[in-house]
Amino acid sequence: MRANDKDFVDKLRSLAKVEDPAVVQKELEGIQEEDLAEAFQRLETEECLGLLTKLSDEVSAEVLVELPTETARSLAHELPDSVVAHYLDILPMDDAVDLREDLGEERFEALLQVIPREDAAEIRRLMGYPDESVGRIMTERFFEVAPEMTMADILGDIRRAKEEKYETVNDLYVVDSERRLLGVFSLRKAIRAAGTSTAKELMRTDVVTSRATDSAEDAARTMARYGFYALPVLDDADRVVGVFTGDDAQEILRESETEDVLALGGVSGSVESYLSLNVWQLVKRRLPWLFFLFVAETFTGAVMRWYVRPEAGGGESGQLATIARLTLFLPLLIGAGGNAGSQVTTTITRALAVGEIRAGDALMVWRRELATAVLIGAALGLMGFLRAYFGWLSGVGVSLVVGLALPAIVIWAAVVGSVLPLGAKRVGVDPAVMSAPFITTFVDATGLIIYFEIARRVLGLHF
Amino acid sequence: MRANDKDFVDKLRSLAKVEDPAVVQKELEGIQEEDLAEAFQRLETEECLGLLTKLSDEVSAEVLVELPTETARSLAHELPDSVVAHYLDILPMDDAVDLREDLGEERFEALLQVIPREDAAEIRRLMGYPDESVGRIMTERFFEVAPEMTMADILGDIRRAKEEKYETVNDLYVVDSERRLLGVFSLRKAIRAAGTSTAKELMRTDVVTSRATDSAEDAARTMARYGFYALPVLDDADRVVGVFTGDDAQEILRESETEDVLALGGVSGSVESYLSLNVWQLVKRRLPWLFFLFVAETFTGAVMRWYVRPEAGGGESGQLATIARLTLFLPLLIGAGGNAGSQVTTTITRALAVGEIRAGDALMVWRRELATAVLIGAALGLMGFLRAYFGWLSGVGVSLVVGLALPAIVIWAAVVGSVLPLGAKRVGVDPAVMSAPFITTFVDATGLIIYFEIARRVLGLHF
Repeated sequence: MRANDKDFVDKLRSLAKVEDPAVVQKELEGIQEEDLAEAFQRLETEECLGLLTKLSDEVSAEVLVELPTETARSLAHELPDSVVAHYLDILPMDDAVDLREDLGEERFEALLQVIPREDAAEIRRLMGYPDESVGRIMTERFFEVAPEMTMADILGDIRRAKEEKYETVNDLYVVDSERRLLGVFSLRKAIRAAGTSTAKELMRTDVVTSRATDSAEDAARTMARYGFYALPVLDDADRVVGVFTGDDAQEILRESETEDVLALGGVSGSVESYLSLNVWQLVKRRLPWLFFLFVAETFTGAVMRWYVRPEAGGGESGQLATIARLTLFLPLLIGAGGNAGSQVTTTITRALAVGEIRAGDALMVWRRELATAVLIGAALGLMGFLRAYFGWLSGVGVSLVVGLALPAIVIWAAVVGSVLPLGAKRVGVDPAVMSAPFITTFVDATGLIIYFEIARRVLGLHF
Repeated sequence: MRANDKDFVDKLRSLAKVEDPAVVQKELEGIQEEDLAEAFQRLETEECLGLLTKLSDEVSAEVLVELPTETARSLAHELPDSVVAHYLDILPMDDAVDLREDLGEERFEALLQVIPREDAAEIRRLMGYPDESVGRIMTERFFEVAPEMTMADILGDIRRAKEEKYETVNDLYVVDSERRLLGVFSLRKAIRAAGTSTAKELMRTDVVTSRATDSAEDAARTMARYGFYALPVLDDADRVVGVFTGDDAQEILRESETEDVLALGGVSGSVESYLSLNVWQLVKRRLPWLFFLFVAETFTGAVMRWYVRPEAGGGESGQLATIARLTLFLPLLIGAGGNAGSQVTTTITRALAVGEIRAGDALMVWRRELATAVLIGAALGLMGFLRAYFGWLSGVGVSLVVGLALPAIVIWAAVVGSVLPLGAKRVGVDPAVMSAPFITTFVDATGLIIYFEIARRVLGLHF
């Protein structure tokens, strides 16, 4: 059912050049927006725009919602108001806030005028809740009934209600005259009950709820814990203000899992899909940690220097003294290689696990990782040289060895960290076994060879 | 709403001693089984049994299902057939297979005789599907209709159907005379449609499905991807054989996420909750990796030996030569400390993230981690000593230093790896920032001090 293989991407490429919207719409009819969005991530921006402007506004907006938010926002810049307004109308409120920053207050306000007034009011209301709260994510479209209502009345109301009012949930909420939650029962139960039985008789009262100001992640975990598909959301006065639905909860959990996994691997920043980030953004996400760890490892180096004291050995010129001087930098080099490698392997293993990239994307991934490693390696190499030369007065030779070995090891770590999981995937082994500790250990041994071989050439040592 | 704080656990402790089942049942009325199960994990086995035998068979079975499977199985051993039969009746089929192995074929078959014949047949059928497949997890309780049926007929059928037939899903499946899937529509749609409209008119035909033999994890990801709450499951002839529901899918994703996270941190084995594992089981999950990495690091040591050649220095007795000999073991020590630390921090960060342990559990966690680290450290220390003494002929002194430093560093890493995330949680910082690379780097520097200080004492070096 997934239409995301290479053929499909190629088909989209050629459709992007077709002028007639009717042809494009016909060709893509019946394909799920999620599948379109996945394939779009493999297209150029121009190609995406070519397709989005020819699809109906509704479908384009659905595709935008399924795209990684950064990608969607940059496309929104280039799209006509009619599409962006639809997008704004269906987008999670957390993203609406970002969109406002991105498009500017003025265009955003203009868009709010275009969409139905009720929806605009909802957007303004939900944007008032704190960042990452349940209030930002919940829907206000749910069905509430009074406790005395009979099933016959309720089913009649449901038949007459506007479609959208009733889009997302299969539960009915029983509220008192001040909209305080009294209980809940399922639509199923309503159908099966006698027409004369009342909401009060059918409802269960031990309802698990969340607050609009609660953390959305916590609420999503609560929902998962009890296996619920929706949680009623209350305000501070226990009034029902919305419903937090299961699909949004899953989305949030998935993102927070990814964030946790990447953080464990030392990749910082909010979660964006791997494919939506360019090389420069990959560097920005990884360098801060490496830089911090680099500084921390110089503390390790200081410890080494305190104990090893190369100058205590057989004269300044002895090879063992030189080697002792080189060993001072071992923790730094091993650390940088291991950390860079685990960043790469964590990122790729995660993207493989959630199905964002496949074994077939190997070449593209390697190109990106190599470019990223060259930039990161150059930055660390420069820092390493300066630290060795000015910081520890290690002499030009040793400093140069450190400055050259760092980029070499970082690039090597990136190669190992990306080839091993993708290779494992290709031969059908779970990539997760190529864990960060495995990569780190592997890079340790091989990184040392790189280091000492560079030292042999630069310093003319004989081993 | 969560009743899992210390007071509640204490209350359960005293209830476990109460003789009268009526009192226990009354006291625990209205508490969700998930909350009972969470609190049970903090009780002794005897206390759990004391409570489970006094609760109704149904409630006990529900609690068992919510417990980690290893815990549930060991409790099942001690519980009467009436409880275990209920448990068997509601448990995911994957676990039923394990239960059969655990209880023995004989008691298992006897239990199958006790539960409703239809359910026993279902259990036998689902157990026939491959391990970790959709077939093992799906429910056979779904509602199928013929394409020509009208909504009036269908709603009538739903009203008359047995409750359980219709327990889990809000979608109706349209099948032909050979039970091949034609389409699907929601219960909501059925209610809102005219009584005379037929299933064929209402159904959507672009249905995302899964196969009974597909991997359950892949199917769960598909469901999450499209934001569905259920997937119809087909056999090889495209007949509908079951429904894979959203709550089971979430459960599977959560477990596989945990498995991935732990694997990245170098903790092997299938996922059990942290609290359900004893110290010995924690050791078993962590030692294989550490042992493997230990062996791998001796390769790194060999590289070091090749380049550093301590015997080339200022005589066998020079302090620099001794230190050079000590530095050969640096990658091994740094590696072991870093790996042990990242196992601990990964395990604890994960348990915190899924809400399995809380900042208040710090003392219990530290006790467990310390005991685990002592066992692991002792094993690695012994291996390290033997490797140094017999493998590299490093002499008693250096070998002893290595053998003592390894456990010291592993224990230190466990302290750092457990104190930092729990401390972060307590002061309100996201524990994920105490990532594995952070712990590794921190343990690197401090581990070296431990190593050289032990060397100073044992070898009488002067720094």
